[in-house]
Amino acid sequence: MLEQLKKEVYEANMELPRRGLITYTWGNVSGRDAETGYFVIKPSGVDYDALTPDDMVVMDLEGNKIEGKYKPSSDTATHIELYKKYPEIGGIVHTHSPEAVAWAQAGRDIPLYGTTHADYFLGPIPCARNLTTEEINEAYEKNTGMVIIETFEERGINPVYTPAVLCQNHGPFIWGKDAAEAVHNAVVLEEVAKMARNTELINPKVKPAPDNIKEKHFYRKHGENAYYGQ
Amino acid sequence: MLEQLKKEVYEANMELPRRGLITYTWGNVSGRDAETGYFVIKPSGVDYDALTPDDMVVMDLEGNKIEGKYKPSSDTATHIELYKKYPEIGGIVHTHSPEAVAWAQAGRDIPLYGTTHADYFLGPIPCARNLTTEEINEAYEKNTGMVIIETFEERGINPVYTPAVLCQNHGPFIWGKDAAEAVHNAVVLEEVAKMARNTELINPKVKPAPDNIKEKHFYRKHGENAYYGQ
Amino acid sequence: MLEQLKKEVYEANMELPRRGLITYTWGNVSGRDAETGYFVIKPSGVDYDALTPDDMVVMDLEGNKIEGKYKPSSDTATHIELYKKYPEIGGIVHTHSPEAVAWAQAGRDIPLYGTTHADYFLGPIPCARNLTTEEINEAYEKNTGMVIIETFEERGINPVYTPAVLCQNHGPFIWGKDAAEAVHNAVVLEEVAKMARNTELINPKVKPAPDNIKEKHFYRKHGENAYYGQ
Amino acid sequence: MLEQLKKEVYEANMELPRRGLITYTWGNVSGRDAETGYFVIKPSGVDYDALTPDDMVVMDLEGNKIEGKYKPSSDTATHIELYKKYPEIGGIVHTHSPEAVAWAQAGRDIPLYGTTHADYFLGPIPCARNLTTEEINEAYEKNTGMVIIETFEERGINPVYTPAVLCQNHGPFIWGKDAAEAVHNAVVLEEVAKMARNTELINPKVKPAPDNIKEKHFYRKHGENAYYGQ
Repeated sequence: MLEQLKKEVYEANMELPRRGLITYTWGNVSGRDAETGYFVIKPSGVDYDALTPDDMVVMDLEGNKIEGKYKPSSDTATHIELYKKYPEIGGIVHTHSPEAVAWAQAGRDIPLYGTTHADYFLGPIPCARNLTTEEINEAYEKNTGMVIIETFEERGINPVYTPAVLCQNHGPFIWGKDAAEAVHNAVVLEEVAKMARNTELINPKVKPAPDNIKEKHFYRKHGENAYYGQ
Repeated sequence: MLEQLKKEVYEANMELPRRGLITYTWGNVSGRDAETGYFVIKPSGVDYDALTPDDMVVMDLEGNKIEGKYKPSSDTATHIELYKKYPEIGGIVHTHSPEAVAWAQAGRDIPLYGTTHADYFLGPIPCARNLTTEEINEAYEKNTGMVIIETFEERGINPVYTPAVLCQNHGPFIWGKDAAEAVHNAVVLEEVAKMARNTELINPKVKPAPDNIKEKHFYRKHGENAYYGQ
Repeated sequence: MLEQLKKEVYEANMELPRRGLITYTWGNVSGRDAETGYFVIKPSGVDYDALTPDDMVVMDLEGNKIEGKYKPSSDTATHIELYKKYPEIGGIVHTHSPEAVAWAQAGRDIPLYGTTHADYFLGPIPCARNLTTEEINEAYEKNTGMVIIETFEERGINPVYTPAVLCQNHGPFIWGKDAAEAVHNAVVLEEVAKMARNTELINPKVKPAPDNIKEKHFYRKHGENAYYGQ
Repeated sequence: MLEQLKKEVYEANMELPRRGLITYTWGNVSGRDAETGYFVIKPSGVDYDALTPDDMVVMDLEGNKIEGKYKPSSDTATHIELYKKYPEIGGIVHTHSPEAVAWAQAGRDIPLYGTTHADYFLGPIPCARNLTTEEINEAYEKNTGMVIIETFEERGINPVYTPAVLCQNHGPFIWGKDAAEAVHNAVVLEEVAKMARNTELINPKVKPAPDNIKEKHFYRKHGENAYYGQ
């Protein structure tokens, strides 16, 4: 079932090592099927070299495995919370890409320092708080999703306009309209995280980019007045 | 028309991913035809993998498309201002190469710290000011070109001797006598930007290189007394 | 003799240049045979390009060469001390991988800043003290092993849960249940060392990750309640 | 003439881009013939892709071209001074490798922070002073060699035990018993320069490695009591 989506999710997963975002099995991509509401996700801890489209696992939003010979990614419950809350999201990625992880470990939002960032994200990449011991013990992966949602709700951030988050002391989750766009955004996040680190090293007193250039660049590429591309 | 120039501009564009200056479609190269005054530029937002010489777009300096099935790069109006102002320029590149972007985001000129820099640029790489909201709203890309020109005029910099600029919170524009030389200079700029960052990390109180070594190296490679090369 | 183990140790050694941990011959991997108690180790100073499984040297724990046409790695006596003290260890790696070396040269433990670290190591990577002149003169490589053991003993660190150490002004030793796992852990250590450096650059006042997330991640992957993987 | 040496020098030059030490034509390697006293050097400004062994230029120590269709490297006069002063040197390299250049631009010696450094260099890599305007105007490349020699003389450094120097605001020269060893040492220098930068970022108050470990590692690999390798 969902053969086409499995192939897309497989391809999106394989893009992670090609783009240098992944060491060993440290990442997972999922994609949602609009019709059934099911989603397809990478199995847990299987080498990228050995993966095939058929190894992808089909899940429903209650966490039931619908099809697949493997256990799904250990982060599946985080994906579920995001899919349940945000119907606009069609694909989700988690990685330990080193530049984004460094910001997550530093416990800081990535400030919007320029147009590379603003071409994709309409504001800083938020760093979500640590989970409490109770939240960890009760349901770590589910509550990771809940804390991401809490972050976007409390700060009034639109997850479609800022499709990424850093989980403190952990790493990024990134999303998009489908699995391929989510991975594309993950590549951009890593590049933006590196640029932001170097920006602060070059100028420790640097301020975020002005709102006018942020909005110009974001809306040059997004929304009804976009004019970038064909 | 301009088949040879299209091929050269295509090749110059393809050099950007080969040299690691480009993520996805974040860049564009153009080249000018001396005879017609037209220039050839990459189309907007087309994957490098899919590009062919025939996809290049022929434009005139009033911004009219002369030939081409695609929309030209969204930064075309910036290229036009530079070509109009500086007849010596035959090729222009824009990238989001990460080391140069970090300086642009930091809002700083790249100081001339050594001979690698002085072999190509006779002074710091200037960082042009941000555009005002009025300039952004009126004509963002055209005014980006105008602010670059303002920077060179006000500071009295010869754009032939310093063929690059950083646009604040954005990234570099680089040029040369043709598209290939412009890309060559873009590669050098990225290397120089990285070296300058690391130089300041190693010695936060470092001063720019003395004028005598700057001039020795620049004129060893440029002008009538040059003796580098064959 | 021990043909299968020689092949495994050869493959583990060849993984070092593939993973970018090695310049020239700066590293060595060994693996222990459970039955005989012998171990197999890379010869000293032989180019990786020229290595074959047959070049591996078989040693006993008293430092006698049992088989092999080459001299064993100059660090063999360090491997011996670790194998003698810790029966749980089946493979050992030494490299000069640059990110781990930078921490060793800085004379600092690598703090546990996040889940990438905690997925593999249940605490900071300890930095062992320098040897005294007497220890160097008496038996440098043997005493390197003794100082590693002293570090784990004095601090009460379980080497199975924290399978790596930094030798001050030198570089890392890493281990595991076999040669392949030791190399896997060496790759992780290098990634973790890089992330930790960048974490401190982004936030010079950063604190280590909380114990609850450290333990959650370590025991998600290790021990009887592990649920990561298939 | 000197066909074998030309081939060795060609191979040593080609190793520079393979090892990532070179952008475009920014480097040159030479090798000396013990019998004739001539040396063979890369031509100036010729693309590495286009080089052949036959393009190498044969020179004598008075700067006369003995054979070759091309002009020799613009840095030839620096090589000559080093060959004339130090009969032990059989090969010389100059590069603009970015990590070594950053130290040269910072105007600092590279401190000896660990065994990777001490395995090859018995002390800090000295940073030679800038040339005066008179020295530049009189004979820039020759006087670059003279200032290198002055540095080693004044500080009492043995160039066989510390086979590299940084020319301030410029970059490194590195040497060895032949062209291949000189390039090997250039690769090590770049690695050591990177490690030293990161060491200081991790611990801004770090001290150089103790003399006992420096000497242990250097003499483990060099001199009559060496026991590293086969």
